[in-house]
Amino acid sequence: VSQCDPPSDGEDTFKILVATDIHLGYLEKDPVRGNDTFVTFNEILDHAQKNEVDFVLLGGDLFHDNKPSRKTVHSCLESLRKYCMGDRPVQFEILSDQAVNFHYSKFPWVNYQDENLNISIPVFSIHGNHDDPTGADALCALDILSCAGLLNHFGRSTSVEKIDISPILLRKGRTKIALYGLGAIPDERLYRMFVNKQVTMLRPKEDEDSWFNLFVIHQNRSKHGATNYIPEQFLDDFINLVVWGHEHECKIAPFQNEQQRFYISQPGSSVVTSLSPGEAVKKHIGLLHVKGKKMKMEKIALETVRTFHIEDVVLADHPDLFNPDNPNVTQAIQAFCMEKVELMLDTAERERLGNPRQPEKPIIRLRVDYAGGFEPFSVHRFSQKYMHRVANPKDIIHFFRHREQKEKKGIDLNFGKLVSRPAEGMTLRVEDLVKQYFQTAEKKVQLSLLTERGMGEAVQEFVDKEEKDAIEELVKFQLEKTQRFLKERRTDAEEEKIDEELYMYCNIVSSHNSYFLSCFFISTYFSNYSYFSVPYYQNYYTLLLLNTVSPSCPKLSSSPVM
Amino acid sequence: VSQCDPPSDGEDTFKILVATDIHLGYLEKDPVRGNDTFVTFNEILDHAQKNEVDFVLLGGDLFHDNKPSRKTVHSCLESLRKYCMGDRPVQFEILSDQAVNFHYSKFPWVNYQDENLNISIPVFSIHGNHDDPTGADALCALDILSCAGLLNHFGRSTSVEKIDISPILLRKGRTKIALYGLGAIPDERLYRMFVNKQVTMLRPKEDEDSWFNLFVIHQNRSKHGATNYIPEQFLDDFINLVVWGHEHECKIAPFQNEQQRFYISQPGSSVVTSLSPGEAVKKHIGLLHVKGKKMKMEKIALETVRTFHIEDVVLADHPDLFNPDNPNVTQAIQAFCMEKVELMLDTAERERLGNPRQPEKPIIRLRVDYAGGFEPFSVHRFSQKYMHRVANPKDIIHFFRHREQKEKKGIDLNFGKLVSRPAEGMTLRVEDLVKQYFQTAEKKVQLSLLTERGMGEAVQEFVDKEEKDAIEELVKFQLEKTQRFLKERRTDAEEEKIDEELYMYCNIVSSHNSYFLSCFFISTYFSNYSYFSVPYYQNYYTLLLLNTVSPSCPKLSSSPVM
Repeated sequence: VSQCDPPSDGEDTFKILVATDIHLGYLEKDPVRGNDTFVTFNEILDHAQKNEVDFVLLGGDLFHDNKPSRKTVHSCLESLRKYCMGDRPVQFEILSDQAVNFHYSKFPWVNYQDENLNISIPVFSIHGNHDDPTGADALCALDILSCAGLLNHFGRSTSVEKIDISPILLRKGRTKIALYGLGAIPDERLYRMFVNKQVTMLRPKEDEDSWFNLFVIHQNRSKHGATNYIPEQFLDDFINLVVWGHEHECKIAPFQNEQQRFYISQPGSSVVTSLSPGEAVKKHIGLLHVKGKKMKMEKIALETVRTFHIEDVVLADHPDLFNPDNPNVTQAIQAFCMEKVELMLDTAERERLGNPRQPEKPIIRLRVDYAGGFEPFSVHRFSQKYMHRVANPKDIIHFFRHREQKEKKGIDLNFGKLVSRPAEGMTLRVEDLVKQYFQTAEKKVQLSLLTERGMGEAVQEFVDKEEKDAIEELVKFQLEKTQRFLKERRTDAEEEKIDEELYMYCNIVSSHNSYFLSCFFISTYFSNYSYFSVPYYQNYYTLLLLNTVSPSCPKLSSSPVM
Repeated sequence: VSQCDPPSDGEDTFKILVATDIHLGYLEKDPVRGNDTFVTFNEILDHAQKNEVDFVLLGGDLFHDNKPSRKTVHSCLESLRKYCMGDRPVQFEILSDQAVNFHYSKFPWVNYQDENLNISIPVFSIHGNHDDPTGADALCALDILSCAGLLNHFGRSTSVEKIDISPILLRKGRTKIALYGLGAIPDERLYRMFVNKQVTMLRPKEDEDSWFNLFVIHQNRSKHGATNYIPEQFLDDFINLVVWGHEHECKIAPFQNEQQRFYISQPGSSVVTSLSPGEAVKKHIGLLHVKGKKMKMEKIALETVRTFHIEDVVLADHPDLFNPDNPNVTQAIQAFCMEKVELMLDTAERERLGNPRQPEKPIIRLRVDYAGGFEPFSVHRFSQKYMHRVANPKDIIHFFRHREQKEKKGIDLNFGKLVSRPAEGMTLRVEDLVKQYFQTAEKKVQLSLLTERGMGEAVQEFVDKEEKDAIEELVKFQLEKTQRFLKERRTDAEEEKIDEELYMYCNIVSSHNSYFLSCFFISTYFSNYSYFSVPYYQNYYTLLLLNTVSPSCPKLSSSPVM
């Protein structure tokens, strides 16, 4: 395969719109940002329609929540029905056995071949980690769309012992594409299965080399832990292009793997779901042309994505400006930050004027490293100033202390050492954190058995029933309760009560070893780095939690990792 | 209009399949009964297809839960796509302005006229009280189906001040039907609106008398309270036939209202959701023929509905058999009940053999009035005997004391008098009960303000967010917790704790005046009549609850009333 100038479109050229991680319903209750994902999904489908693509290929996480709200499902159905139905004929055919490709579907054939549906743009999608199949029936949100005939959910593996990926074989004129898909699987499990040779990509029996082999996957690509990602070299050499979902940073221009011959395109998300630098990269989708074994990825800039600007400030790098011994240093810092934010707002405004379809208020993030004896100022008052100009007023400013990380002391359990702060631009893995915590904590603290009635049991029961929604609701409640707690001074008895509650959670988490519960556990008791400096929160649990978790993930079904 | 022999079907005759209260998803997690609603829905649609009807008309409560599970939505979409799509042309046309008829829809036209959908059987449905629109977007589960193009949701009123019902005007040959619909509205509000002349049924401008006027409604028809139903005489005289949903007893053969000229057909539910005599009436759907202004309702017996047999026994009516002073009387009663149940099982088995499509295990209910000094026997042990032969082993036997109702004494708050036991065949209205409770209780008990953290606050927050699902989950948890509580002896301190918790719930309920919360409140602390006789439960709260609520409604989104 080679990258080339765009092949002249024609009867031998597939045109494929490539996008991923659309996260429909993300922050849907936010009065400012609530519609962002729906607007951009419509923009994406509009591009598909205007470019008269043969099909749309999605790399997972079309939905943000495993059980999307009624509004989200409704809105998604509306968009698909509006943009993907119509009279323009679909110009490719399917050569593979569709009963195999869509074996788990009640209507195991591609939607555009259904005699009762007039589909002009078939959408093919694998599921992501956000919208993966759950429950006794192992259905996912995509299956609702698929059952309604508006989407083709593929790449689903039902066995945990062996994954055979059967491609959907597509032909348009003289071009043949073997489309492989693998819906999200926990990275560690998939890693292990690759190592144990339990993953097989099946190949067409005839003319093996005449196919353009396109693989869609939704996993960690960057190394989050030893086995918590999928190394590119695990993938088969015969692949021509990998469309890699899950990673939110847009790196859509195909880049070649150095050891292997294939190209990788990482489209990135179409919505900012974490305030990290990767998400600030301009969002694109791709228009992939495939003719014979040649391909070209055209980038299409998304115009409806809310602008996001992020900057870092290290106070200690400005000894000329800030002296920690100056009694007015906090005011000086605040003024400095305000100036920074104003500049970012100017930039955002100029950018938006170039793209009138972009929503008005930008997302702004200023990360302030206040190590070196400085004190954080009140984020609350600062936020209020930007209530009407910024989409995320509550979390514009993010205080952290990067430099002092390893100098912390005076705590019974040295979490400063135990939990290394994530490197710049990296997010911390909650699973690792919890694992580390238990490895150390169990030596020092004898965890009691669950004997108390109350929330502990509630959680236990919900877990037994796999009622994720219920947990999520409990978490929201617990989070708000915790935030109130943290604002109050407490008696020793109250402190003890908190400790007891934490014991319960710890027990539950440790006995379930579940990612979701880890999030639950953590989110239930974290608040914000900025609390860290307040002495009476230096209860070791609180310390653990405040010290390690990013403050802005109230939606628990979203992974705090990304 | 007149009832007549079935008009010979032809180009002037509408054939309409009429059904209501299908309650998809009812008891979906029950291993025995979980699929009942889906099976019967398929049977209904199969009848529609085999009879080549022009359309299906549903009277509300297609879904049991306001937010049906993914499985339920998926299964419903599957059935509709399977049975209602196809090449058979639809033979009637719509003369009214569809933008008015379907004004709240994103696709405001009837599905069979959508060029992208090949619909052979259009389904028209109003919503019921179980699947009514909720949330900021006022969407209901039917809107998902409607947005997917598989159902036509009509009869929705968005104003609370004025209801103008615009008919969908249908014509087939020389027959013209004006189809009026009114989705479920709280009875008391609709009653008031009728009284205040705020409800108007609009009529076609031309040839007013040439239309067959068909009205579908989903409200209480039987008088549950002074204004808590819709008297038939409220409805306009010009109507020809009312299809009345919500009432579960099948009275599908049209009967004429004596004061007015119209007929009423009450199809009844297609699944047994409460163990009351009305539900034991054989379930039917209707095949309505309309030619000119003549109509005929053909009854179609549903064959897949699980058999339900209910009988009553009054122990005091058998002085020859049972003497309360005999030490072995309880065994005698138990043997008698067992004999009764065996007879019912025989009847059920014979019935089932006549209809091989009926599910194997019947629903059996024996109501035992044990007034007159008798003691109930252990329902638990009795139930176990029928675990493999009955679909509802846990609630076969229902003990009550009808005769002694007004003789109860020795309780601080005289709930015996306060809460009159429902008359035979009637169910108690939970709302009335709670209202009565607060009217009386507030005089005696000074309700404290909510000051405790914990479940109370959780509930409060969920209420604020209208997170019914979350409440439902909490209720399930609370219910199980309560059941454990009730099985244990408690210290005074523990009793007090329960009282405190009840105070909290009372406060929440009283401040919200919500039906849902009333259910929550009640269900949280009820268990079973049979606990009633155990002395240490005669705490007055417990008494109130145990005394009044039917034991078998673990699904809180289902109304215990019906």
